[in-house]
Formats: sequence, structure tokens, C-alpha cells
Amino acid sequence: MTGSAGPAGLVSVVGIGPGEAGTCTPDVVERVRRATDLVGYAPYLDMVTAAAGAPPGAARHASGNRGEADRARHALDLAAAGGRVAVVSSGDPGVFAMAAVVMEQLDADAGAPVPRWAAVEVEVLAGVTAAQAAAARVGAPLGHDFCVVSLSDNLKPWPVIERRLAAAAGADFVIALYNPVSRHRPWQLARAAELLAANRIPSTPVVVARDVGRPGATVRVVPLGELAGAQVDMRTVLVVGSSTTRCFTRPCGDVHVYTPRTYPGAPC
Amino acid sequence: MTGSAGPAGLVSVVGIGPGEAGTCTPDVVERVRRATDLVGYAPYLDMVTAAAGAPPGAARHASGNRGEADRARHALDLAAAGGRVAVVSSGDPGVFAMAAVVMEQLDADAGAPVPRWAAVEVEVLAGVTAAQAAAARVGAPLGHDFCVVSLSDNLKPWPVIERRLAAAAGADFVIALYNPVSRHRPWQLARAAELLAANRIPSTPVVVARDVGRPGATVRVVPLGELAGAQVDMRTVLVVGSSTTRCFTRPCGDVHVYTPRTYPGAPC
Repeated sequence: MTGSAGPAGLVSVVGIGPGEAGTCTPDVVERVRRATDLVGYAPYLDMVTAAAGAPPGAARHASGNRGEADRARHALDLAAAGGRVAVVSSGDPGVFAMAAVVMEQLDADAGAPVPRWAAVEVEVLAGVTAAQAAAARVGAPLGHDFCVVSLSDNLKPWPVIERRLAAAAGADFVIALYNPVSRHRPWQLARAAELLAANRIPSTPVVVARDVGRPGATVRVVPLGELAGAQVDMRTVLVVGSSTTRCFTRPCGDVHVYTPRTYPGAPC
Repeated sequence: MTGSAGPAGLVSVVGIGPGEAGTCTPDVVERVRRATDLVGYAPYLDMVTAAAGAPPGAARHASGNRGEADRARHALDLAAAGGRVAVVSSGDPGVFAMAAVVMEQLDADAGAPVPRWAAVEVEVLAGVTAAQAAAARVGAPLGHDFCVVSLSDNLKPWPVIERRLAAAAGADFVIALYNPVSRHRPWQLARAAELLAANRIPSTPVVVARDVGRPGATVRVVPLGELAGAQVDMRTVLVVGSSTTRCFTRPCGDVHVYTPRTYPGAPC
């Protein structure tokens, strides 16, 4: 990921974490403050501006939630013209976000007869992703082996999702679900819950976290048997427990969920 | 996770990220700087002291790599006596680390006739975990559905690990492997590679990342067919590609690995 000090610039694909300034890494803040151009979904640009401090004079290239490939190409073009470009994702840009999109464009370019972005330096800076933030709020549900699955079938066939859910449930993984509900496919969550219920008891705790790390955040714990009817939207991330995940209430009333590091039958 | 302003103190289970100051969140730095007691594995205490600045006057309770339950109880006792205790993990404390251990102790305490730590406030602060840091260094291998599995059979039976690897490979997940080699079980990685190879072609890219975010970090990409013979130790994290994960070399020589967000057969 080293680059030469040529006329071409830099694309930093950065993750701002869940949203609050306290969870955005200093490296990401530094890249945003030094940027000549900020590229991203408008609400994320608002968040990073609040979290990192508005870079004076930086151009803001806000876009809608779709059109990620165009956004990546635009960022690379800005850097090819000498810009220091921050491509902003919430959470971790490497998890269901812009880093893969930028890489896909670079891959195509590297194979082109005349690469367009050969001199552009590109880096990815990780951040805390939504499942981690949700887990931290409630305890440690991801404390043992886990899977991360997007329920959105915009970019993959639904049968692939079903196969993954069934495999993950059958092998007793904790399962974090991103994009649990789509406006156009309201039946997906109920179907997912059905698949999971084939390998989990109805009392299995499910963490339902909405807007964690942002104003108005809510974190609830519901039993798997009631998940299909739970209030869930696209800004919610779910963490479905494994057979060993436990839920308890402290004397102060705090509810915690965790998955012990030790699995039954362990040698020690 | 709210607490009352009583005489009892606070346990903050914090993750310092991969190790460099630039990847440790401001919230974690703040908790460490305000701590009266730092509890953790000695090398992590060294790292957080370097990353966050040594808290003047804080007591340092360094321990070996084992004995996590004792460490958690010690931290809770210090807080019950009024301390502001930071329990320090590298990466994310919620991923194969101290948060689950602290929760397990709290769970047992909540069920005790006379809870010992009822008044202690407990919080978990997430950090960037090793797989994310490794992924960012090389591109975006975790850009699509993925699993995180520890290959250590200290705390779980080896057959559980085999079942999870086979399920994850069969359902075409990207797979991040923590603790890939144990001193006492040198055959584990080769067996894991064999299980994965049943569902992946030998050229599948595997990211081999050691000490990412620390001095002397190395990140290599090897084909799955050569993984069993690769130099791997306990400070290494692996990311094994799915059937769609791609590897390419940029004109500048940088090697990148990514998993496209779009899966073959997607509706759009």
C-alpha cells in the first residue's frame, strides 16, 4: 500500500465507526482533516464532519445510498488529478461497504491496456463495525466463533443467504445479521428466523440494536421465538446467540448477553 | 450499562485495536488515562501505555496470557473497592478476549445469594480486531459474508472446530482464522487447510497477517494449496477467501485481495 510521491493523489477508504466521535480512530480523523475531497453517502459525511471536525475548504461529494461503483470511480479520478480523497463509510469500510467497491474498480483498472489510476495511492482504514458496537453495548455475544451475514438480496441470490444461515445455525455459530429487512422484501426476516429456529431453542437471545453509537440508539434483547414479530428496520443490526449464549440481568437491572469462551466438552 | 454514583467503581473492558496509537479509539484512550488500575496481559499493558499515554499513578496489574477468570475477578474486586479499572485487551475485547470472561463472572455473581459486585458499573468498549486490520492492509477480503473462527482447542473440542470449518467452507463464507497454530497441536492448521480445500480451489487466496499494526508487521498472500506449509504462528491471523474472493496486482506492485459485494446470480 505504499505510493510514490508523484503528482497523483491518495484515496483513503475510511470507516468512522458507529458514529460518535469517541469511536472514530485517530488515523481516520487525520485522513479526513487532511482531505481535499470527501466522498460518501450524505449522512456519513455529516457524521464524519461532526466527529472529525470539518476540514476547511474540502469539497464535499455527497451521494445517495446506491451507485457505489460510480462513487468509487469518482474518488479515484479525483485522486488521479492530485486530490487527497477520503471515501467515507460508517462502521468498517471493509465490512459490506466501500472498500470492496474501490478494490473492484482498481482490479478492473489494473487489467486495462492503459491503467487510468496506476499512480493513485490507495489505502483502507478499518473502523468498529455495527455488530461490534452492538455487542459491546450488551456485553459480549461475539465472544466465541461467529458469522456475519447480510440479509439483503440486492447483491446476492436469496438461496445463497438461506444456505449460509442454515450452515451457520447448524454449526452453532453466533450470527450477526446486517440489513435484516428490506423495504421490498419484508418476509426475509421471518424466513431467516425460521431457518435459525431449526437449530436453536426459542429462548435463544437475540440482540436487536438500532443506531448504536448515534443519537436515539436502542438496544433490546428478544427471544428468537419472537424475532419475526420484532420491530426491525434497515438501521438495525441483529446478533443471534448460539446454543451457549447466555442472557442475565444484573442487580442494577442491566441486561447482558455473552457467549462464553469455553464450549461444552472442552479439554480444559 | 448505566451505573449510580456510589462508592463502587467502574470496570471498563477496553480494546486497544491492533496496537498502534492511530487505531485506538478516543473513548478507550480516555478510559485508560482516567484509570486508577490497569489490568491485563503484560504486552497489552505496554501497548496501551504507549498508545494512550501512561496514566500517572495508575497501578499496573500485569498477568500472563492465561488465568483470565482470575483477572476478571481481580478487576471487579478493585472496582468494588472504588477503583476505575481498565481491563485491557488487544483488538476488540468482545472477540475471543476479556469481555466474555468479565460477563461470565458477573453472571455468576448476579445469581449469588449476596452479589459481590452489584454496585460495580461495567462497560465494554469495542476496538478494531485483528481480522479487520489484516483485511484493511490488503484490501477488502471481508467485503462479503464471513465467519470468524478460533482454531485453538484449549477452550472447545476439536470436532466442534472441524464442524464449523466444514459448514463455513460448504456455504462459501470467507473465513478468518484466529490462533491458527498451537504449540501443542502443530497439525491443526494442515487439517483445517484440508477441510477448506474440500470446498475451495487450491489457488484461493489466503491472507497471512502477522503482528498487523505493530512493529515488524508482515502481510502475505498465499494460495490455499500452500497454506499447510506456510510460516504461521499464534501472532498470525488468516483470512481464507471464498469462491468469489479475488487477488490482483496493481501496476505499482501492490497486491490486493477483496471479496466483491455482488455474488454470482444476484438479481441486480
